[in-house]
Amino acid sequence: MLAQIHIILKNGVLDSQGKAVHHALTDLGFNEALDVRVGRYIELKLSDITEVEAEALVTDMCEKLLANTVIESYRFSLAPNQ
Amino acid sequence: MLAQIHIILKNGVLDSQGKAVHHALTDLGFNEALDVRVGRYIELKLSDITEVEAEALVTDMCEKLLANTVIESYRFSLAPNQ
Repeated sequence: MLAQIHIILKNGVLDSQGKAVHHALTDLGFNEALDVRVGRYIELKLSDITEVEAEALVTDMCEKLLANTVIESYRFSLAPNQ
Repeated sequence: MLAQIHIILKNGVLDSQGKAVHHALTDLGFNEALDVRVGRYIELKLSDITEVEAEALVTDMCEKLLANTVIESYRFSLAPNQ
């Protein structure tokens, strides 16, 4: 099972990295960029467990370690191992 | 137009952050995690341009600023602004 996890700052939390990237894009002449948000993307390979087990497990991992749920939100999708 | 960009280290490049997260997960008792890769996820809001223009533009942004193409690979998808 492969879990693809997206972690991004909640709305209203200052995204300084996103602001810096937006500034750099504008400096390079990319004026079409209106807003940039930078988050983390985690690919997690899991041993042979069912999708239901994986869902509970990855939620637990996100809550306990991967995301800081005070300021970050997470979402994930599960796919069979490739 | 909203671009969702995933940037991840190429295969064969040591992912020390991924190794550290894997180690931390194992320490917490999550032995189901077999491999972890940590990358970046960027949400980019673009002004009103066509999908063809956006595709060329985001590729250019990734090549010039967002990704270090020596060690990182990127992929992105485009969606209408929400």
